[in-house]
Amino acid sequence: MAAKRTVRPLTDFDRPSVTVDLVLLTVRDGALCVLVIRREDQVAGEWALPGGFVHIDESLDETVARLLRDKAHLPGGFVEQLYTFGKPDRDPRGRVISVAYYALVPADRLEGGIVEAGDLALTKVEASLSGALPAVILPDGRLERLAFDHGEILKMAIGRLRGKLDYSAVGLELLPELFTLRQLQDVHEAILGARLAKPAFRRKMLDRGFLKPTGLLEKGAAFRPAELYRRV
Amino acid sequence: MAAKRTVRPLTDFDRPSVTVDLVLLTVRDGALCVLVIRREDQVAGEWALPGGFVHIDESLDETVARLLRDKAHLPGGFVEQLYTFGKPDRDPRGRVISVAYYALVPADRLEGGIVEAGDLALTKVEASLSGALPAVILPDGRLERLAFDHGEILKMAIGRLRGKLDYSAVGLELLPELFTLRQLQDVHEAILGARLAKPAFRRKMLDRGFLKPTGLLEKGAAFRPAELYRRV
Repeated sequence: MAAKRTVRPLTDFDRPSVTVDLVLLTVRDGALCVLVIRREDQVAGEWALPGGFVHIDESLDETVARLLRDKAHLPGGFVEQLYTFGKPDRDPRGRVISVAYYALVPADRLEGGIVEAGDLALTKVEASLSGALPAVILPDGRLERLAFDHGEILKMAIGRLRGKLDYSAVGLELLPELFTLRQLQDVHEAILGARLAKPAFRRKMLDRGFLKPTGLLEKGAAFRPAELYRRV
Repeated sequence: MAAKRTVRPLTDFDRPSVTVDLVLLTVRDGALCVLVIRREDQVAGEWALPGGFVHIDESLDETVARLLRDKAHLPGGFVEQLYTFGKPDRDPRGRVISVAYYALVPADRLEGGIVEAGDLALTKVEASLSGALPAVILPDGRLERLAFDHGEILKMAIGRLRGKLDYSAVGLELLPELFTLRQLQDVHEAILGARLAKPAFRRKMLDRGFLKPTGLLEKGAAFRPAELYRRV
């Protein structure tokens, strides 16, 4: 016998705060890098992923687009929802549920230090292949863990990206429009944190049908310029 | 020149309500089924996914465990976070962000109508392979769309499951401990909404190394009982 349920209004329930946190990844000089920000609040001085509160009248996708615009001066690009993190004690300020997104941006679109003004920095990721949380290398060379549960968020983003590399063209999101196979291999190696065998890698990439040769050669190579490819 | 940011307290921002919605899927009599509930509030009479507000002191995983316990009398099982849905107008009651989870439960664990008391029903899913939203077949035979954006949530859950079938042992979550290859094929066909060629399916499943033969034969088969398998 099912008892008649009582319908309770929304306001009967305590509401959490909801934020979007952004894992903006790029590969620069062969290294996986993430955008981080120095906090000025309860965790002042610590570094964290950029994020912001979801405005009451905007969708989650609109929040992440706003963050990309305001924090990284980017009009868009590859962005995907990653996971929602909601442990009650994850933020010392109170109950905050965070919907994490990750974005992939080619390094050349971040150039000119646009994103590194003020308290923002694009930092190299130190991600072990074991279970440990990744850390970042700050502009002054210090190796540091991220505030809150942002190390877990970064770890999940890297895991997701590693998984996707194997069956999708996601690596191309980190390259300019025209690229060499060497650059693509650099991107894969930076994400996987491992060296790959060149002939097997090239064969695998070409077999997938994501790439097409352009007949053009890279410029500025001192010796044997390589062919440029583009995505199909 | 970066201006010093002002630190604003959590309470400066309007807070949304946050719910967990649950897509509980099973395969019964060769058909993909989902647990739905008849609503009694603003959308009274409409059918929706079961869900509940996230309590201020519980994690999202704890909320979904509570829903499984209260709505389906299940102690646990295969549960994964699916996606977070946050369009501002998705719920007529106000701003509600929903963290959707999906659960896979073998039909034999749902037997005895435990989950079908009162206003809960385990309904067949009508999922087209085109872009249309899936609908459910209610106990009285009517084909109906789900309330809110729950059709989108169900569609994403089915899409996730279809994707995972191809590279993981996820189909085994919908079977009892011992099963025949025919039962496994039924599960795949129900999820994919398509018939599969038996010899190719069997070879593919056995090649993956997820299954091991038990040497036991199924009981109750009138003719040529099939061998039982278990997961490795």
